[in-house]
Amino acid sequence: MSTHLAHNRYGKRDVRLVKVTPRDAYHVLQELNVTVLLTGDFASTYLTGDNSPVLPTDTIKNTVYALAREHELETIEHFAIDVSRHFQERLEHVDTVSVEIAESLWQRMTVDDKPHPHAFTGSTVEKATCAVLNTAEGITVHSGIRDLVILKTTGSGFANFLKDEYTTLEETDDRLLGTDLLATWLYRSTDVPFGEHRQTIRKTLLDIFADHESDSLQNTLYEMGKAVLGRVPDVADIYLSMPNRHNLLVDLSPFGQENPNRIFLPINEPAGLIEGYLQAE
Amino acid sequence: MSTHLAHNRYGKRDVRLVKVTPRDAYHVLQELNVTVLLTGDFASTYLTGDNSPVLPTDTIKNTVYALAREHELETIEHFAIDVSRHFQERLEHVDTVSVEIAESLWQRMTVDDKPHPHAFTGSTVEKATCAVLNTAEGITVHSGIRDLVILKTTGSGFANFLKDEYTTLEETDDRLLGTDLLATWLYRSTDVPFGEHRQTIRKTLLDIFADHESDSLQNTLYEMGKAVLGRVPDVADIYLSMPNRHNLLVDLSPFGQENPNRIFLPINEPAGLIEGYLQAE
Amino acid sequence: MSTHLAHNRYGKRDVRLVKVTPRDAYHVLQELNVTVLLTGDFASTYLTGDNSPVLPTDTIKNTVYALAREHELETIEHFAIDVSRHFQERLEHVDTVSVEIAESLWQRMTVDDKPHPHAFTGSTVEKATCAVLNTAEGITVHSGIRDLVILKTTGSGFANFLKDEYTTLEETDDRLLGTDLLATWLYRSTDVPFGEHRQTIRKTLLDIFADHESDSLQNTLYEMGKAVLGRVPDVADIYLSMPNRHNLLVDLSPFGQENPNRIFLPINEPAGLIEGYLQAE
Amino acid sequence: MSTHLAHNRYGKRDVRLVKVTPRDAYHVLQELNVTVLLTGDFASTYLTGDNSPVLPTDTIKNTVYALAREHELETIEHFAIDVSRHFQERLEHVDTVSVEIAESLWQRMTVDDKPHPHAFTGSTVEKATCAVLNTAEGITVHSGIRDLVILKTTGSGFANFLKDEYTTLEETDDRLLGTDLLATWLYRSTDVPFGEHRQTIRKTLLDIFADHESDSLQNTLYEMGKAVLGRVPDVADIYLSMPNRHNLLVDLSPFGQENPNRIFLPINEPAGLIEGYLQAE
Repeated sequence: MSTHLAHNRYGKRDVRLVKVTPRDAYHVLQELNVTVLLTGDFASTYLTGDNSPVLPTDTIKNTVYALAREHELETIEHFAIDVSRHFQERLEHVDTVSVEIAESLWQRMTVDDKPHPHAFTGSTVEKATCAVLNTAEGITVHSGIRDLVILKTTGSGFANFLKDEYTTLEETDDRLLGTDLLATWLYRSTDVPFGEHRQTIRKTLLDIFADHESDSLQNTLYEMGKAVLGRVPDVADIYLSMPNRHNLLVDLSPFGQENPNRIFLPINEPAGLIEGYLQAE
Repeated sequence: MSTHLAHNRYGKRDVRLVKVTPRDAYHVLQELNVTVLLTGDFASTYLTGDNSPVLPTDTIKNTVYALAREHELETIEHFAIDVSRHFQERLEHVDTVSVEIAESLWQRMTVDDKPHPHAFTGSTVEKATCAVLNTAEGITVHSGIRDLVILKTTGSGFANFLKDEYTTLEETDDRLLGTDLLATWLYRSTDVPFGEHRQTIRKTLLDIFADHESDSLQNTLYEMGKAVLGRVPDVADIYLSMPNRHNLLVDLSPFGQENPNRIFLPINEPAGLIEGYLQAE
Repeated sequence: MSTHLAHNRYGKRDVRLVKVTPRDAYHVLQELNVTVLLTGDFASTYLTGDNSPVLPTDTIKNTVYALAREHELETIEHFAIDVSRHFQERLEHVDTVSVEIAESLWQRMTVDDKPHPHAFTGSTVEKATCAVLNTAEGITVHSGIRDLVILKTTGSGFANFLKDEYTTLEETDDRLLGTDLLATWLYRSTDVPFGEHRQTIRKTLLDIFADHESDSLQNTLYEMGKAVLGRVPDVADIYLSMPNRHNLLVDLSPFGQENPNRIFLPINEPAGLIEGYLQAE
Repeated sequence: MSTHLAHNRYGKRDVRLVKVTPRDAYHVLQELNVTVLLTGDFASTYLTGDNSPVLPTDTIKNTVYALAREHELETIEHFAIDVSRHFQERLEHVDTVSVEIAESLWQRMTVDDKPHPHAFTGSTVEKATCAVLNTAEGITVHSGIRDLVILKTTGSGFANFLKDEYTTLEETDDRLLGTDLLATWLYRSTDVPFGEHRQTIRKTLLDIFADHESDSLQNTLYEMGKAVLGRVPDVADIYLSMPNRHNLLVDLSPFGQENPNRIFLPINEPAGLIEGYLQAE
């Protein structure tokens, strides 16, 4: 019995990228997950280990970044078509190019009743939470928010930090700052307008995140918590946990492209973790 | 060396429920995940197997359902406080009652520029998708939507179906109908307004879902697809996959309560799966 | 333009079941996830809301349970074939029956160097964990295990518990008992054989779980922790969290079948949560 | 009302690394997820945006890599202690250092009844699968395996591939090769020993993966499929999907360290995707 390679396909799956496009006074934010798969004259690679027809999947990834840098990205469909054309025109031994894109949806924040130029909330599974503890001493109510994904495309820097021989991070006065916010706060009593307070607190957290010129996530966290304690005296303390969801600037220089905060690689881990617990006094 | 049981705690985690509350012409929809944990005089259960102080965690679950039925549920905080009081007052040997609630957020749909009385979208990770296939024959563009969570609290029945000896399902003229919609459609060319069409198609799918008096998910699926083909002639075909995300009516009769479509148990699996592929002719 | 329903399909996805089969002195444990999808003469349901050809997906689920009860279940392939034949032979208007099964893999525990008759570990993403806290007062080391899935098919009961008007749970002297174990223990110093102790502790936890005649999960938890403290004097305390991963006995009586602990529905939530913190004295 | 920063903490969460340690003729494989959190004199960062006390979380990540390179890593506990000492001794303004490690468990493969020097299976949720299609033309049975995580620490290269201006990947004759295998195969009839064949096929796939000197994942995939078709004539065809789960070599040169395939960064996405469909003839 002999073996026939009836079909084969290869490519890169889940190339993630964030693109920031300045337009007038606004930043446009797009997050894509791109998969590119090729079929064609690749059988020799499978059968004999001949790699000469194989454009590495790493190159496919690089190409997606480089094309995303140049492309208008008005719709994912237009971008997918152009990516498919790139490989179809370049590689004579390719039969089919399949490009699949899934776009995560970001909403521009509204602050002071106006669309904010560079702050966004993500498409999320945000939850409203509470925890009640009932003991002989009485009842305490903690309320909270979980998995509220927020990101700002400018208005954030990080510099003048401590350095040692393991420090390779460069200082920056302009970076992306994103987190999925966890907040819990303690009410002074059980006799407060829970629903109304929740709305005020959520809005306050978002407003400060959007508008604060951030020297560090620590600093922004503190200002967010302080504003909540200032605006809602029924709140006795607030705990904030804000993992730094990094978006790494992609190095496009090997392809002769500048990248002034345009194309980023969003990563899930590791994440910086910043926590703060603030009390009203 | 002897062993000391320094601390213990027990209870029920992740009691999920959906509550529907009619208010004037509108249905209010709330989805909660409730955890109740008790500490107190329970050591004998651990040490000697004496179960007499243990109220079963199954009873804790039942209690959450029964209290949710009676409660206004204006805020999760008020409900958590009342649940905690129930156990604190009833069980003398309990020291602390901890109640944690996480509320999933549902948004009322807007149809014809008005808030819809009983159709909702969930807090989601909805994605916009496309798939481009580029071959010697040309380029095809499929666009789509993924993980769009939708639910209606009335306007849906299921009756007159086939029955055999394994059929225990009862007929109903009023049930909850929920799904996480997957749709993909094929454009007739690459020269269409992708962004504009996407908005029209998404809105059409939601409008029909909300307003169609459903005899079955199959029937609703067909009407949704048909409306898209009718409104956007650039679309050649559409595939819809709509798993039936069941919400089971909780039996409250052992507790002397009626449950006229008020308290439901949302389950992840199994799910009915309904698919349809519609072509314009 | 008219609309053509070019293809349709329906059925039930993710019907989960656990089957226990006594064989000589041993229990065989199988966990399946079954999906059944039908095509055929169902267009009228989509087009006109006529449900008469539709066997409810709920009935499909029931059928899977009932057939699993009768079937040898030697391989998932044989079972899938028989399920497919059931619907093919019974429903004249069906063209194709697709049955997909995914089996989760359980391993029989080895206790005292012998295969245990009724205790199993699941196919898991078990993690070994540790947490070190380094302060001016010194260094503490907690080690642990996370996501260790274990289940026993007999040797567990729950009776003589507290009852109130919300209690519908029935007493039992024979049930399935499963959990995904989380354990963390504190070492008395940093100068202990961490690797060797980890093996001893893991084995001790499994041995006791398998062999202890359980009156409650609380009782089993305590015996497990006590045994660890007894065998490893370097451990000062141990915390155990054991959510009760319920397997509900499926009611097969409507189909004229007995179900003496054979066919179960495994559910993810809610889960009873049992915690204990034990100190050596 | 004034605000008091009652507590704060920061650090890096989920630093993932894979370490390969040659020992005699064998490779030892360890995969860790490390979290380091610091408390101390950091309030000024929160209150005034003064970053001078903050060692960047990026540096914490680098330190974990560098220490992992030097460390014996006999147990995770020893490594956690040493990481905690590094920061405690170096940073005078730190009060507490918390180090948490979760180790994913890899098992060495057995090939020809002997422990394999460099091939491993991961701690997985592997599933056995089948799909039966029953139509008027008869019954077809596909069986399969899903989510079988495998990795080899040597015996794999990738060179002589196609290059263009977007290619930055360097050629290598020694890399880590990992995948989570998806396989489905078609039986020629329904009258075959399904259980026995499944064992043979699974073993064959693992044997070839472990022992084949890989020029590419494509080449290894083909040899795996070919061996199955050769050994089990009842199989008519086999489809293999093998995403390339990349482990990136960490650049330790800024810290004066060599990294001859010792410390890797495992990433989830993007993944190269390699597929092949082989028929027996």
